[in-house]
Amino acid sequence: MPDLARKLAAEALGTGFLVATVVGSGIMAENLTEDVALALLGNTLPTGAILVVLITIFGPISGAHFNPAVTLAFLVRGEIGGGPALAFVAAQVAGGLLGAMLAHGMFEQALVQISQTARSGAGQWLAEVVATFGLVGAILATVRFRPGAVAWVVGLYITAAYWFTASTSFANPAVAIARGITDTFSGIAPGDVPAFIAAQIAGSLIAVGVFGWLLAGDGER
Amino acid sequence: MPDLARKLAAEALGTGFLVATVVGSGIMAENLTEDVALALLGNTLPTGAILVVLITIFGPISGAHFNPAVTLAFLVRGEIGGGPALAFVAAQVAGGLLGAMLAHGMFEQALVQISQTARSGAGQWLAEVVATFGLVGAILATVRFRPGAVAWVVGLYITAAYWFTASTSFANPAVAIARGITDTFSGIAPGDVPAFIAAQIAGSLIAVGVFGWLLAGDGER
Amino acid sequence: MPDLARKLAAEALGTGFLVATVVGSGIMAENLTEDVALALLGNTLPTGAILVVLITIFGPISGAHFNPAVTLAFLVRGEIGGGPALAFVAAQVAGGLLGAMLAHGMFEQALVQISQTARSGAGQWLAEVVATFGLVGAILATVRFRPGAVAWVVGLYITAAYWFTASTSFANPAVAIARGITDTFSGIAPGDVPAFIAAQIAGSLIAVGVFGWLLAGDGER
Amino acid sequence: MPDLARKLAAEALGTGFLVATVVGSGIMAENLTEDVALALLGNTLPTGAILVVLITIFGPISGAHFNPAVTLAFLVRGEIGGGPALAFVAAQVAGGLLGAMLAHGMFEQALVQISQTARSGAGQWLAEVVATFGLVGAILATVRFRPGAVAWVVGLYITAAYWFTASTSFANPAVAIARGITDTFSGIAPGDVPAFIAAQIAGSLIAVGVFGWLLAGDGER
Repeated sequence: MPDLARKLAAEALGTGFLVATVVGSGIMAENLTEDVALALLGNTLPTGAILVVLITIFGPISGAHFNPAVTLAFLVRGEIGGGPALAFVAAQVAGGLLGAMLAHGMFEQALVQISQTARSGAGQWLAEVVATFGLVGAILATVRFRPGAVAWVVGLYITAAYWFTASTSFANPAVAIARGITDTFSGIAPGDVPAFIAAQIAGSLIAVGVFGWLLAGDGER
Repeated sequence: MPDLARKLAAEALGTGFLVATVVGSGIMAENLTEDVALALLGNTLPTGAILVVLITIFGPISGAHFNPAVTLAFLVRGEIGGGPALAFVAAQVAGGLLGAMLAHGMFEQALVQISQTARSGAGQWLAEVVATFGLVGAILATVRFRPGAVAWVVGLYITAAYWFTASTSFANPAVAIARGITDTFSGIAPGDVPAFIAAQIAGSLIAVGVFGWLLAGDGER
Repeated sequence: MPDLARKLAAEALGTGFLVATVVGSGIMAENLTEDVALALLGNTLPTGAILVVLITIFGPISGAHFNPAVTLAFLVRGEIGGGPALAFVAAQVAGGLLGAMLAHGMFEQALVQISQTARSGAGQWLAEVVATFGLVGAILATVRFRPGAVAWVVGLYITAAYWFTASTSFANPAVAIARGITDTFSGIAPGDVPAFIAAQIAGSLIAVGVFGWLLAGDGER
Repeated sequence: MPDLARKLAAEALGTGFLVATVVGSGIMAENLTEDVALALLGNTLPTGAILVVLITIFGPISGAHFNPAVTLAFLVRGEIGGGPALAFVAAQVAGGLLGAMLAHGMFEQALVQISQTARSGAGQWLAEVVATFGLVGAILATVRFRPGAVAWVVGLYITAAYWFTASTSFANPAVAIARGITDTFSGIAPGDVPAFIAAQIAGSLIAVGVFGWLLAGDGER
């Protein structure tokens, strides 16, 4: 088993690359077009693609959570201890913040910014509950029935969720925090982050309950 | 074998997420662009992606029909009984309607709407026959030769069928009914739904016949 | 082994669906947008996606050529006899023509049209040689080293070749003939078809030679 | 084991097709649209797709480096000798230049051009370090844990990196040199190439160090 240092490095690197992709592709997209749907597409496809890559390469080292809402689900299910879980979350948040700064560095922007993008209201919060419920449920089901498919399932799920949720599916507290420090396409006003995180935690816990029951039966194949 | 309750929950959840994606991504897309081709792309990619996810995660529980035209095909082939088939269809329709309402909730719209989008005429009906024939045929052939590939085959088939059919390929009575209660990009006037369903049933039955013969031989590998 | 009738039906159905997708998605795309790059994207993604589907489902029955240039390559390599090869090509051409007519029927257009789109000149012909060389070479190499990956390799190859070749990569005589009877986005003036077919045959034969040598060694894995 | 001639042919052919795709799809895209984000998408998707194809078909012959920064990483790790490495790089550079000329030929442009596109500055260089670090790291990790997934991982990584890096991710000295001879969408002024190559070498070496440590532990599965 990889030692904890390697696992934490994998979580930090993975979350960092994920956030650098979300933020960087958002900057690239809004630099290149006036059409917001096209910009969202230029934000969506790279994010989905990098998730497949990152989960494939870091999954065997740390499990490739990159997401405190996912780590929370495994904690509640007793599949990770409290100490490592806390360390995972710290690595994810630190990695995410560094990833946003890295994207800013590549695009020659101020490394730390304060997002002005309001993302709030019942629709947005419902969207984050739904987005995280689906993400965590998809992970739990895939780990149970087809562990080799997790990378693709997560990448494709987020590709879809960018569009079917009103919030564009953050579904990840570490990513939400990191997107608070970018005043670009993918940013979120820091004051709006706590409610997003609360919604994400709720979605994760509901998924643990619902999918815990669903997956208790035997699969057909 | 998972008990029937779990199977019905999987069918309802899967069809619900599918419709939430179709309706939600349609709303997102038409909110963001004036270009209808771009909006259709923003509707297509999430739908194809979520199908791969949903079939991967619910396939081992219920078979992941999410579609009365598919359940009908398995019924005619004797692979599901009449009672379970009826329950499946009820779960699909209920899940689909809830999925449309969920999408409306996330985008802060009236939960139930009456679509004004006319979708009618010989071309549209032919398109639904073709779309459903291809979908059911692809499922039957893949289940026969490469069962592990069904999720991808269906996701990619619908990605294509959104564009090559004049109707954008509903190919699913439960989804057609659910799309009747959204007056957004993906809606269909409720009065136009029955003819779509008839065309879908026809396409499914033709596929059972044609592919029943085609697949009766031995595959080469 | 499936009998010849099933193989020919698979070749005709597969080529028909392929052409219906190329022609139908082209009509849909040009109906929805003024931007030609977006229209080409709306033509490309469905074509690539349906190829993965069609090769997955018909491959085990007929080998899923759908393309006289591919059948020619297998004939030259001695992997199919002259009689069956001729029957395959007839089924492909007939299926392709019916596919174009089916697309026209769905979009309520005249079933048979005369394309006015000139596609000619040295650049176009070179493009068809390159496109077919790459397609046939990719198929031969994948069949040799990773037979289960042929469907994806062909779908992705054509996705790329739509864009990197000046001709948008027909790379298929049966498809070229069928595209002669549609005066829509994907059409080609019938008088320009023979030179395209000659270039495609040349590309196929060069691939048989070059990849015959390349693949004569042992692969590393 | 394939003899060296076949390996070099595979490296030259693969790099040639890769560059023909990058340059050709860039020309196609900028011919068809005024929207630069859409042009970049028309450049991105074909490049990602062809990489999956090329690595699948040439991987078993030469390892499918197509990239001196990748060959360098394997040299430093002692997995390829100095002589073959040098020959690989020569084949890659020659193949890349021929690929650019082939694209020009298909689009009936001057075969050799001098790019006027300035790509320079700290942000661009940082982007190339990051892009190459991620590419080489992803390859090393995937070869270690899931060798069969390398083609997809590289194709998806580049799909993402086109957008999240400020430089659109060249990440490949042979491709950078070849893009110096095209004055089209994907070009780079020849004078800006050396700094790009230096950044790519730095990224590759950092990846060898970081991932050498990360991958020294045992994977969990």
